[in-house]
Amino acid sequence: MGDKLVLDNAKKAAAYKAVDEYVKDGMNVGIGSGSTIKYAVDRIKELGLKVTCVPTSFQSTQLIIEAGLVLSDLSRTPKLHVTIDGADECDKDFNIIKGGGACQLQEKCVAYVSDTLLIVADYTKDSVQLGDTWKKGIPIEVIPMAYVPVMKKLESLSLKPVLRMAVNKAGPVVSDNGNFIIDAIFTPPLQNIPQLAIDIKMIPGVVETGLFINMAKKLYFGQKDGSVISKTL
Amino acid sequence: MGDKLVLDNAKKAAAYKAVDEYVKDGMNVGIGSGSTIKYAVDRIKELGLKVTCVPTSFQSTQLIIEAGLVLSDLSRTPKLHVTIDGADECDKDFNIIKGGGACQLQEKCVAYVSDTLLIVADYTKDSVQLGDTWKKGIPIEVIPMAYVPVMKKLESLSLKPVLRMAVNKAGPVVSDNGNFIIDAIFTPPLQNIPQLAIDIKMIPGVVETGLFINMAKKLYFGQKDGSVISKTL
Repeated sequence: MGDKLVLDNAKKAAAYKAVDEYVKDGMNVGIGSGSTIKYAVDRIKELGLKVTCVPTSFQSTQLIIEAGLVLSDLSRTPKLHVTIDGADECDKDFNIIKGGGACQLQEKCVAYVSDTLLIVADYTKDSVQLGDTWKKGIPIEVIPMAYVPVMKKLESLSLKPVLRMAVNKAGPVVSDNGNFIIDAIFTPPLQNIPQLAIDIKMIPGVVETGLFINMAKKLYFGQKDGSVISKTL
Repeated sequence: MGDKLVLDNAKKAAAYKAVDEYVKDGMNVGIGSGSTIKYAVDRIKELGLKVTCVPTSFQSTQLIIEAGLVLSDLSRTPKLHVTIDGADECDKDFNIIKGGGACQLQEKCVAYVSDTLLIVADYTKDSVQLGDTWKKGIPIEVIPMAYVPVMKKLESLSLKPVLRMAVNKAGPVVSDNGNFIIDAIFTPPLQNIPQLAIDIKMIPGVVETGLFINMAKKLYFGQKDGSVISKTL
């Protein structure tokens, strides 16, 4: 199997196991974003589960609609039983980097109101410390007018900020919420990650960071052989 | 004199004094928002000061343009010598509530990069503790999709959140950045205001709060008789 197929099978295995273990009829379910989540939606559909889904992006809204599942939002459904989402990297203490897909703002809002956050990912996202495998830094959503001073402030926190540029558009990536994304590159190890998450979000102009601290309850990592290693704190 | 005229004269006196004391040729100046700031812009124009102005709202952008002053932004001018802004209430420890005009996000971004933040206001904004005179709560800018869970979380912090509704538009006020404003009403005294500012901003979906803590260097309060009482920490 080629690398992509191996990774896809690992993602699928993780997503299926999370759905099988946690999602039950009648639940309100947060649907994350990214390449792994489509398998979770597939599995929910396949099992015919009667759930109400709250999306975390345009992408996941479309997945929910295409699967014929019940679509809701945080205004109608402000409390969720479980959210299933992907990750860019998870360390041994369940500190997580998200936002490679620029969806971390809505993802964090949805995860925050969930009784249980499950992370599903392939084996490449499983690391000892943040920065071991994910080299693109901490994704930080900022309001456009403040991106220059925010970048200067991030430098004073020993981070190397890069404004994320778009590919099929001139200029920077614009998030689903109309903001820019700064990737704050760092040399591991990060010191005092919970405090760093506060220090970054308290910068005026920062809307949300991709650091998810003390949020995930269980991590599912699909392996090369199609098995799944799960971890619970 | 009617009340409005007395207040306007007080605002004008405060704004004029702040400009006279701090604004010099060649400075980068942040221009706040609200009813007092127009007098600061008037005074800068009257004195013919050669300054570069960074606005904090659509309103202040228009004031700068109409006065014929040099208009810039935080991308070109990310470091300011001084910002002059209004306030809804200032307590004896220089804790400040802003955002009655829904501009606190940009105002805080601009204030944050300023060497000196001057607050100009009439005497009604001068109080011993927050909530003594300002009864409308702490203005909190939130992304629209998260306003219900954010309100629920604010209740758990012993605040009474109210979604700010528009007057000449069906539905809520939408900020210059496309967000909603929640007014978090409280019964004074607020406990541990610096920590409260962190607790509120760390809620996913909160973009910025109207609590300005440890930011203002000098407060100018115009009085009924046209004099100005200034306070420096």
